[in-house]
Amino acid sequence: MDKAIEIVNHMMAQDAFSKWLGIEVVHAEVGSAVLSMTVREEMTNGFKIAHGGISYALADSALAFASNGGGTQSLSVETSINHLSPVQTGETLIATAVQINETRKTGLYQIDITNSDGKCVAYFKGTVYRTEKPWKL
Amino acid sequence: MDKAIEIVNHMMAQDAFSKWLGIEVVHAEVGSAVLSMTVREEMTNGFKIAHGGISYALADSALAFASNGGGTQSLSVETSINHLSPVQTGETLIATAVQINETRKTGLYQIDITNSDGKCVAYFKGTVYRTEKPWKL
Amino acid sequence: MDKAIEIVNHMMAQDAFSKWLGIEVVHAEVGSAVLSMTVREEMTNGFKIAHGGISYALADSALAFASNGGGTQSLSVETSINHLSPVQTGETLIATAVQINETRKTGLYQIDITNSDGKCVAYFKGTVYRTEKPWKL
Amino acid sequence: MDKAIEIVNHMMAQDAFSKWLGIEVVHAEVGSAVLSMTVREEMTNGFKIAHGGISYALADSALAFASNGGGTQSLSVETSINHLSPVQTGETLIATAVQINETRKTGLYQIDITNSDGKCVAYFKGTVYRTEKPWKL
Repeated sequence: MDKAIEIVNHMMAQDAFSKWLGIEVVHAEVGSAVLSMTVREEMTNGFKIAHGGISYALADSALAFASNGGGTQSLSVETSINHLSPVQTGETLIATAVQINETRKTGLYQIDITNSDGKCVAYFKGTVYRTEKPWKL
Repeated sequence: MDKAIEIVNHMMAQDAFSKWLGIEVVHAEVGSAVLSMTVREEMTNGFKIAHGGISYALADSALAFASNGGGTQSLSVETSINHLSPVQTGETLIATAVQINETRKTGLYQIDITNSDGKCVAYFKGTVYRTEKPWKL
Repeated sequence: MDKAIEIVNHMMAQDAFSKWLGIEVVHAEVGSAVLSMTVREEMTNGFKIAHGGISYALADSALAFASNGGGTQSLSVETSINHLSPVQTGETLIATAVQINETRKTGLYQIDITNSDGKCVAYFKGTVYRTEKPWKL
Repeated sequence: MDKAIEIVNHMMAQDAFSKWLGIEVVHAEVGSAVLSMTVREEMTNGFKIAHGGISYALADSALAFASNGGGTQSLSVETSINHLSPVQTGETLIATAVQINETRKTGLYQIDITNSDGKCVAYFKGTVYRTEKPWKL
């Protein structure tokens, strides 16, 4: 099996919170990942829309999978997110992570989250630090 | 009862995800909020530490409570978080939100999350937009 | 003349610092702007590369031009920039601003800065607040 | 002379743009720096207030000085700034950089810029990566 997919499957298998969210890995390769999940009632906030933590968590998992697939353990150092549009219960979200830049020690990723209509509901940017620890499966 | 506390209690009562997280409101006043929660196994990621979405969600709730307590509905427009230190299952986190700036239409808040040892484990900044809609309870 | 170009020309004509930087407007339309400038010796820092403030300023001007061209005065509320690669004296930079999202009261813009080789040297995100003040020229 | 001050003086001596800005080092120690500068006409934008690039540049220099004073060359990886209040020609700005967190490989700094009235006019956050290159003077 492809190494990136193997690492992502391994990470996902141990990631209790991504499982609780119902995240599914649609696609994974070195530097990139596409995830999907469907918003449930228990994920909403006081405005009766998805809590900001839900789309953040989806994007953060996409960041982890996209940045670790290369085989080196990578840790998030800075992330930011703009919530662009409310997300309702029952909506399926797709997070697409792409690598913008890579140095020997850091990586920058852009993650867009779209809803079923293809509208961008959240815009996420994440910077990771590459440790020297390889993934051993 | 104090208006800010009334609004925060109302928001919290309807906030299914904050309840799932086990968030408790330690303190709330106009422009400020202190929340606590304890990390459970199901909140961890593939590194066996709290998923980034957990501390983000805690900070995001603190942002919502601190920025809405003044009586005007406020919506997050931009947020960023630096994860500074891994958080283990069983740790209790405290999020403290303070208002840095306020204009007629926007507010800026700083939220620090500390663990039981008082160490800052996450550093969050959030900007909100003030709608013209008052909270009616 | 096109209204967006008229506004951008007017802003540029009064923008002393953008002139000091040698910024030229390559293209401007509602929600978008492309600017260029060439790095001079006096713009470098202690590492003998362009000071971070130079590429930030270029991107910030692009944000201002892209977000004001629609005819409503817009003010920056939050911006972030990742400096991806060192920029040397003599290099010509191109900043391209595109609108990612728009609500009635806010706008989100992505600005990429590339060097002569087409490499992305800085990655900038900016959120603006739309006032109710129209541009009158 | 103190090592941090020596490094900052050395950086400042070679930093052409910080000199153009008229930056003065008020204080420097490992992990911290205080800088001042006065806004001149040529630093203003189309709104006749200080260009966003000016306060960013001041904060970015403060980040560089605070993060390099420890003796290891450190490079900015991510920065963000909120412009909170317009700054007029003639105003003297003070930037105060403090270290929020440090790991073996990264550092997080908060920089506040205040005007003569002590009002916070810009709120800046910066993350640096520590190279393995020591400063040799």
